[in-house]
Amino acid sequence: MNPELNWQAALQAALPKLDSGGRVSFAPGDLAGHAHDEGVPLISTPSAVVFAHSEAEILATLAVAREFGVAVTAWGAGTSLEGGVLPAPGGISLDLGALDGISELDPVGFTVRVGPGVRRVALNRRLRPHGLFFPVDPGADATLGGMAATNASGTTTVRYGGMRENVMALRVALMDGRVLNLGSLARKSSSGYALKQLLIGSEGTLGVITSLTLRLHPLPPATVSAQLAFPDVAAAVSASVVLRGLGLTPERLEFVDADTVAAVNRHRARHDPELPTLWVELAGRDTADAEAGLTLLREVAADTGGQVVGEARTPEAQSDLWAARHGVYDALRAAWPGHATRIGDICVPLSALAETVALMTQTLSEHALTAPLVGHIGDGNLHLLMHAPPEDAGAWARIDHALHTIALHALSVGGTCTGEHGVGLRKRVYMREEHGEALDVMRDVKALFDPQNLLNPGKVVGEID
Amino acid sequence: MNPELNWQAALQAALPKLDSGGRVSFAPGDLAGHAHDEGVPLISTPSAVVFAHSEAEILATLAVAREFGVAVTAWGAGTSLEGGVLPAPGGISLDLGALDGISELDPVGFTVRVGPGVRRVALNRRLRPHGLFFPVDPGADATLGGMAATNASGTTTVRYGGMRENVMALRVALMDGRVLNLGSLARKSSSGYALKQLLIGSEGTLGVITSLTLRLHPLPPATVSAQLAFPDVAAAVSASVVLRGLGLTPERLEFVDADTVAAVNRHRARHDPELPTLWVELAGRDTADAEAGLTLLREVAADTGGQVVGEARTPEAQSDLWAARHGVYDALRAAWPGHATRIGDICVPLSALAETVALMTQTLSEHALTAPLVGHIGDGNLHLLMHAPPEDAGAWARIDHALHTIALHALSVGGTCTGEHGVGLRKRVYMREEHGEALDVMRDVKALFDPQNLLNPGKVVGEID
Repeated sequence: MNPELNWQAALQAALPKLDSGGRVSFAPGDLAGHAHDEGVPLISTPSAVVFAHSEAEILATLAVAREFGVAVTAWGAGTSLEGGVLPAPGGISLDLGALDGISELDPVGFTVRVGPGVRRVALNRRLRPHGLFFPVDPGADATLGGMAATNASGTTTVRYGGMRENVMALRVALMDGRVLNLGSLARKSSSGYALKQLLIGSEGTLGVITSLTLRLHPLPPATVSAQLAFPDVAAAVSASVVLRGLGLTPERLEFVDADTVAAVNRHRARHDPELPTLWVELAGRDTADAEAGLTLLREVAADTGGQVVGEARTPEAQSDLWAARHGVYDALRAAWPGHATRIGDICVPLSALAETVALMTQTLSEHALTAPLVGHIGDGNLHLLMHAPPEDAGAWARIDHALHTIALHALSVGGTCTGEHGVGLRKRVYMREEHGEALDVMRDVKALFDPQNLLNPGKVVGEID
Repeated sequence: MNPELNWQAALQAALPKLDSGGRVSFAPGDLAGHAHDEGVPLISTPSAVVFAHSEAEILATLAVAREFGVAVTAWGAGTSLEGGVLPAPGGISLDLGALDGISELDPVGFTVRVGPGVRRVALNRRLRPHGLFFPVDPGADATLGGMAATNASGTTTVRYGGMRENVMALRVALMDGRVLNLGSLARKSSSGYALKQLLIGSEGTLGVITSLTLRLHPLPPATVSAQLAFPDVAAAVSASVVLRGLGLTPERLEFVDADTVAAVNRHRARHDPELPTLWVELAGRDTADAEAGLTLLREVAADTGGQVVGEARTPEAQSDLWAARHGVYDALRAAWPGHATRIGDICVPLSALAETVALMTQTLSEHALTAPLVGHIGDGNLHLLMHAPPEDAGAWARIDHALHTIALHALSVGGTCTGEHGVGLRKRVYMREEHGEALDVMRDVKALFDPQNLLNPGKVVGEID
């Protein structure tokens, strides 16, 4: 390569030039659009954005980065919550959104291949006519590449698992220019080291995902949903554990605390009982089967001191019933206009759920905070939706301290500091406490894959600044 | 350490001495008992066997091995089928069978902690009074440590996943003396690199598992089993795919070919229809629910040209019905007394099952062989039970060639060379074809964990001799 080239020029030389300006952008608007995520109040502006349209263009970008020692951070939809997609200052934001091809749909093998830029909602729209769906649902309309990179999960994980259980195969571009095929189309394997699993959840620090083959599932023939209210949190937790003990695996099993139900009532003019509440979706072979599940659910509610306060069978009715659960974030924004948010994300053993919810409530109180508490309770994954005016430094200090207390509690009961949002920048502080000497091994693995420390540097296993 | 010590003396000095002779054995009987597995016709005698009773003793053994450069191969129950537990000649066989403690049973969190030497059957006996079980069932009464090391799976994997999905946490002793805690008690996590998954399936080449925390499941409230016969293999495969498409996930979904049903009939004086056959176990909330599943199963059989030829509800009746499936190996041994066996183990996409079974049948014919064909068909995992007199070199050459043809076919359709038995020594020949350049990365990972190449050297990613 011409030694007189700077990396910006080299990048432009390496990638296609188009009438519209090409794949490489230095435009302030593009840079600003890739300078933040949806969770961290930091701006970190890249020096260039590459809009890759093919694996070859990803490799060309990595080659320039390698030669000139420029950092590269992959970008999907930018819905990260912990800073995972924030580019290194001066580095390249590698936007994979245009790699949105869906191919090789195999309705007999229950697989499909997607580009890393395919979004979840678009994929499921494409799959629906085949009676299939991809279940992992983190809420946001994230890209599949980003979801794999953070091992995303969500409301359906209690039934279907997260990305780790639903990615069959990956193609991954390494920093040295190799492209690895990891995994296979077989539903299980004992062949070689689990590099596919190692890459899933590595948040773009080990390689760049260039395509994914996903495991699909049949759309349930029939579903019913129910809303269950309980006199206290312990009873709601108890009901969710009893459900699991009966082997009645719901499609979704969600928890919202009483104050939050009240907030949603105000925002949506609903009249749901303002009590700790579970939302449950059950699937069945047919309507009668789903109804029988609902009968059992009513029994469990009664046995644990709760009651069914809403039932829904049609798609419209289910959508309305779930709206109260899904309306939490909007209710929060309506109640506190102008507030910024920060979402806690811990996951604890099911046997520690009740004490953890109590600890969270007490911690909020001690810090003079209020925050909606929602949880993928069937997995033990709890979120606190902290909020305050962006400029209220005192409130943010209390929020930081409260979330820190809660994260340390999660670790103390054998849980994890992040159930599904990833480590990014902000959870690095817990890596030593959670992983001990395994963190050193993780750093060795990072150095093995990326000896120049150019791939999303500083994230996940990076030293704290 | 005293430089005059040889490693054998150092090992004895480092480990407890007991009246019964201590932890270290050089007795020919002990050496011979650790010189072979159940699948590979090779004898590879260790120079010493260490019967470790604690993690500290594992670490002491690794320290001596490190200092003197002696190879160490972990040993569970010796039920490996691909040579995974064969010690390196002159090395140490590290027998973990005495680490058989079961502790920290948490029936609310659905977890239990076990030593690596705990056996599957003993664990489930201990769990049964709590209404719980550990579902992974590879057939053999293997140790949990060995099962994790090979990412074992089996008949129930179609419903519950294999070891990768059911190990919550591992403690692993590294060759350099560190002990890592990998995973947590949380049911999901996005925290850090998936080293737990990397260790699962690494067959003792990266570290020695010193304890495991397992994910437990409630025993199903009710089960029914059915036996379905089909006019041809394609129809049986079609039925299994239709079942999956209906979302009717069975507890087990097994396939046996017509000739093998005939062999079992002869051996057990049964009269099952000598046709391609599926065995299915369905679970339900209650008896009525399980019966409703059976009704749907009958419809699927009819729709795909098959019929239900056996139904069983009581535990005794189910045991009898499944005896025909489980009797395949005994029938083989009875029909061919004195024959040795070699079990093929491929896994293919569900959409390639029918063509793969046809290829297997044709390959047997072309090689003048007969062999029972059984499969965990819901996962696409197919086994051929090859057999011949141990001394019939011609037959074994044909068997090797046939299995090689079939393994290459599995790879050509996007499958894997080993669905559940692991790589060990014998499947190394497929690692390059299956993994491409990822094999080089696996070897780099091996060097990172075990720079002296002392942990189960040569296995999985080792060069072929």
